[in-house]
Amino acid sequence: MIIVARKGLTADELDNIRERVEALGLRTHISIGGTRTIIGCIGDEARLGHVSLLSIPGVDSVHPVMRPYKLAARDFAADRTSCVQVGNRTFGGEACLVAAGPCTVESERMMKATARAVAKQGATVLRGGAFKPRTSPYSFDGLKEEGLRILARVQDETGLPVVTEVLDPRDAALVAGHAEVLQIGARNMQNFSLLREVGQLHRPVLLKRGLAATLKEFLLAAEYVMSKGNMQVILCERGIRTFGAETRNTFDLAAIPWLKSETHLPVIADPSHAAGRRDLVAPLSFAAVAAGADGLIIEVHPDPGTALSDGDQSLDFKGFAQLMRDLKAFAAAAGRTV
Amino acid sequence: MIIVARKGLTADELDNIRERVEALGLRTHISIGGTRTIIGCIGDEARLGHVSLLSIPGVDSVHPVMRPYKLAARDFAADRTSCVQVGNRTFGGEACLVAAGPCTVESERMMKATARAVAKQGATVLRGGAFKPRTSPYSFDGLKEEGLRILARVQDETGLPVVTEVLDPRDAALVAGHAEVLQIGARNMQNFSLLREVGQLHRPVLLKRGLAATLKEFLLAAEYVMSKGNMQVILCERGIRTFGAETRNTFDLAAIPWLKSETHLPVIADPSHAAGRRDLVAPLSFAAVAAGADGLIIEVHPDPGTALSDGDQSLDFKGFAQLMRDLKAFAAAAGRTV
Amino acid sequence: MIIVARKGLTADELDNIRERVEALGLRTHISIGGTRTIIGCIGDEARLGHVSLLSIPGVDSVHPVMRPYKLAARDFAADRTSCVQVGNRTFGGEACLVAAGPCTVESERMMKATARAVAKQGATVLRGGAFKPRTSPYSFDGLKEEGLRILARVQDETGLPVVTEVLDPRDAALVAGHAEVLQIGARNMQNFSLLREVGQLHRPVLLKRGLAATLKEFLLAAEYVMSKGNMQVILCERGIRTFGAETRNTFDLAAIPWLKSETHLPVIADPSHAAGRRDLVAPLSFAAVAAGADGLIIEVHPDPGTALSDGDQSLDFKGFAQLMRDLKAFAAAAGRTV
Amino acid sequence: MIIVARKGLTADELDNIRERVEALGLRTHISIGGTRTIIGCIGDEARLGHVSLLSIPGVDSVHPVMRPYKLAARDFAADRTSCVQVGNRTFGGEACLVAAGPCTVESERMMKATARAVAKQGATVLRGGAFKPRTSPYSFDGLKEEGLRILARVQDETGLPVVTEVLDPRDAALVAGHAEVLQIGARNMQNFSLLREVGQLHRPVLLKRGLAATLKEFLLAAEYVMSKGNMQVILCERGIRTFGAETRNTFDLAAIPWLKSETHLPVIADPSHAAGRRDLVAPLSFAAVAAGADGLIIEVHPDPGTALSDGDQSLDFKGFAQLMRDLKAFAAAAGRTV
Repeated sequence: MIIVARKGLTADELDNIRERVEALGLRTHISIGGTRTIIGCIGDEARLGHVSLLSIPGVDSVHPVMRPYKLAARDFAADRTSCVQVGNRTFGGEACLVAAGPCTVESERMMKATARAVAKQGATVLRGGAFKPRTSPYSFDGLKEEGLRILARVQDETGLPVVTEVLDPRDAALVAGHAEVLQIGARNMQNFSLLREVGQLHRPVLLKRGLAATLKEFLLAAEYVMSKGNMQVILCERGIRTFGAETRNTFDLAAIPWLKSETHLPVIADPSHAAGRRDLVAPLSFAAVAAGADGLIIEVHPDPGTALSDGDQSLDFKGFAQLMRDLKAFAAAAGRTV
Repeated sequence: MIIVARKGLTADELDNIRERVEALGLRTHISIGGTRTIIGCIGDEARLGHVSLLSIPGVDSVHPVMRPYKLAARDFAADRTSCVQVGNRTFGGEACLVAAGPCTVESERMMKATARAVAKQGATVLRGGAFKPRTSPYSFDGLKEEGLRILARVQDETGLPVVTEVLDPRDAALVAGHAEVLQIGARNMQNFSLLREVGQLHRPVLLKRGLAATLKEFLLAAEYVMSKGNMQVILCERGIRTFGAETRNTFDLAAIPWLKSETHLPVIADPSHAAGRRDLVAPLSFAAVAAGADGLIIEVHPDPGTALSDGDQSLDFKGFAQLMRDLKAFAAAAGRTV
Repeated sequence: MIIVARKGLTADELDNIRERVEALGLRTHISIGGTRTIIGCIGDEARLGHVSLLSIPGVDSVHPVMRPYKLAARDFAADRTSCVQVGNRTFGGEACLVAAGPCTVESERMMKATARAVAKQGATVLRGGAFKPRTSPYSFDGLKEEGLRILARVQDETGLPVVTEVLDPRDAALVAGHAEVLQIGARNMQNFSLLREVGQLHRPVLLKRGLAATLKEFLLAAEYVMSKGNMQVILCERGIRTFGAETRNTFDLAAIPWLKSETHLPVIADPSHAAGRRDLVAPLSFAAVAAGADGLIIEVHPDPGTALSDGDQSLDFKGFAQLMRDLKAFAAAAGRTV
Repeated sequence: MIIVARKGLTADELDNIRERVEALGLRTHISIGGTRTIIGCIGDEARLGHVSLLSIPGVDSVHPVMRPYKLAARDFAADRTSCVQVGNRTFGGEACLVAAGPCTVESERMMKATARAVAKQGATVLRGGAFKPRTSPYSFDGLKEEGLRILARVQDETGLPVVTEVLDPRDAALVAGHAEVLQIGARNMQNFSLLREVGQLHRPVLLKRGLAATLKEFLLAAEYVMSKGNMQVILCERGIRTFGAETRNTFDLAAIPWLKSETHLPVIADPSHAAGRRDLVAPLSFAAVAAGADGLIIEVHPDPGTALSDGDQSLDFKGFAQLMRDLKAFAAAAGRTV
């Protein structure tokens, strides 16, 4: 932490600042310039975290210099990407993995049809929501336990591991009993009870970035899960909220290489929610892989026009097949396979 | 819902659109213009909510015309502001009510001192966090149950009703057992499990706007609570996240009169979190009341320089006393009392 | 400027950083901590402004510590608010001044009627656009020179000083020949040619904040004008662009007290453009004055329903009269007059 | 335009709305639903543009249905991409073209060295600023006319066409006399005087998206240039301003395919300004090409550590060579060449 003093700092004020910092167990290093005095605080920055340094008379501004996340930081894994095993495949390895499926589990029949169709095109994970967060209390919010049972049967039958969202800490174990991968949705990225709960399970967690979360907050959310012992976190950029009105969200493409440079965790992208429009899903997918993404999660529905949710952004089987064919060349250009 | 067709719509496409809409139980009204055909959908718009109208061939754009919230809408209360009773005072009445207290419950001693100090200046509710949401898993996250017990004792002893945050649906009943008012924080505005849980309790709910929530989403979050039977919702504007870097959040002042015109629920403001800086708390408070706020919630700490959280934005007792004195004239100008 | 070094900085890298900084005429102060080394740069920070410090091997992050504006900074005026004289009134004095009038000069008749109506209610400046910036090239963009001549005649006849926008540096002298106050619109806040041009005129400048401008960038835009010798700058907060969809812009109320604490220049607010809706203009006006604004600029039109632009946000004469009556109490509460 | 009436619309109000719309030369189509009446306005929507429909009693909301740009719309060019000729190459053809060079023209020597280096790697346009927009009036703002003369000589000598920014309408002809392509920077995207001025020149215009411009506003800015007769507009996505703090701007990748579907104009990307960090330039470049960009503009400097501006985001020659080598495979995957 670096403390910059106000112009005209008195000797008493400087002494007081120094004492306050040292009382917290840090050493100080004073640098008196022509116009400003600077107090370097040496030691464990976290000890200063809860203290109101700006309240100390004479303090003008405060600059943290350490990264607040430890387990999620790149250094922690000796600079390699961590591999998160899902079924017999790994996120973070050479291959870009693709999860695909409908927004919502609507029936066993549609899930099986979708599972077979997407697996045939190379998807290695099946997505589908049983518990659905909906902006309005009057919207359909999923088949819940019945949806989970459908997912479990499809997972068993097709061998395709399933990712599905958990919304409530009380449901975490139940969801983990039916699906291989637990998804934390964008709205719950800072639902700390839920993060801690999935941190205690031994299951891969697909963590989506919140709509208004900075990338540092995103990594701190991952840190919540990891600090409870579960290191199997996959990060997912899915678009942020900005003034932009032409797409559902603003796909923050640069988040992908930024995260890859800051953390050892695998990073994937959700082009469907970012775009909100079917015709933009393919170009966003290609771009994500070109920028270094370790995978994609894509909404696919047997008949998007009748989907119970997110039909506008879902691909049909034919559209998904085309995307997977075209994706190969971009993955190859990035030195990856699909 | 109004559907605008693409240029060059064929008669078959038009028939198909009409059939799809009518199959959902709505009537259609076709308006064929020189360049565009428009299909008005008459009936319950909610029935169209889950259908992907944009996927129907020939559809260019779709415009909802109804408000998605019902219970929270102004009409519902015959155009009056609903009064939410807290202790023996009411939010939404003639008086602007002020909740005040520290960010975090640190000890019984400081809570009692604060309760007495703020009550003396006219505050009618005591705030204080027992469960604290923290961006980092390594930050102090509150005294939890011990904090609740302190709040309950201070509430009993001073008669000042307490508002405190509930973070986890499993804790809702526990918190309701100790505090008069349940706060849903900004990060949990779309934690739908939690909203439903507090919707089943008979307690006033202080609902804070999410960092990236539109005002319609905010009202739909209130609708979640109300649709479970709990009509005692107080809305709180506390700043949104924008590119602005000079304040902690961007105080969306216009949200106050906008909400007052759209909903019958009482609306208050949290200038402390909006500003993030002690010196801006008073002007933001005056502005909120001038714009029609029904109350304020303000962070006050006996010694902000040593606060365990949010010290930079907390007033000391003297600062709070000054604010309350100055506030009276603004409330009077707005035809209110404090 | 403070330079924080990367973990594992070598002695050679440190020497190189020091040499590079000292070669620019600054002194350095090295502080070697347990995990990080910090290099304080002492002297004129501006000398480092154009150099890529992040490109120097071993540098992790760079933190400026000085304010980049000098003439606009509060210190410059020995902590007083500068008064900008407009006609025989002053912005920045005890009185909150109100500029009022239509978005666009439509005819001499309507301008005279408006001037008389707003003057009667206490407005001290008349607004009206002769050159209008329009998002579409096909929209009406003002009466231009004919509009200026109308403004000049109305100014002469009624004695009400006129504020009108200048869009092009080639028109600056022409506009100054007809109107008392030159307005720089939000879209031109960083049109540096235009800022320099009005900086060479001896006329008050009403500078509107850009839609996406930080407050520091806003003050630097004022600094452009001032650095050319024209100190008569009035700052105007008029809303910023965010994800918010319910109002035309997001009124950044906190900008008012923040600016008042950072600069000696007078600060006013434009509630009409911030809200974009007539019914929110009054509450936003009251709030701005409550937060310390030195004045307001409000759109008023004899018949908003027929206005050539911005009719939705314009008050009619009756609405303006009501606003001015109600405003008095808020100004009084703030220790001001209207 | 579709007008939705308020609940409880009276017959008189409906008649009045109809009369007002028809008086403007449009026909109306009334659709009376169970809860709402809808008035379709048939004819030239532009005629309604300046009228305050929301001011008419009984009107609740207004929905435009036409695109406001004509010449820039995809339809205008019969659905092909327009080719903009620059030197003997075309933007919008099969090849992705790359413009490269320093932020600022610093000397003839560095410009020649850079021109040769980037041409050797396949760049087909040289970039370099002679007039520089700077946030602070105290920053170096370019060599101006001397810079233009250097550019002209380097253009002549190397045969590499030059793109450089024009800031002031008074300089447009001068800049066009020295450089092949005129750049309109992000800050000037809505400097309508400047847009009209370059619209009258017969020169390709590289138009950068404003920091807070929606894509519709971006196309309307292009429409300004085109409506004056100059159809040679190249659009450039360069990042927008959001809450995101980890990159200089937020690269709106989805803007590329969205624009490609809405307009026939060529679309390129500026990864350097979007990222603000050298290490992110390559992944953003690959992503842009993968998403369908027709080209890139990249900052390259012989020695970024000594650059007079934007050194942090500039590649050196080696870095640029590597990027160009790696880019080929992504272009090939997109069915393009570099």
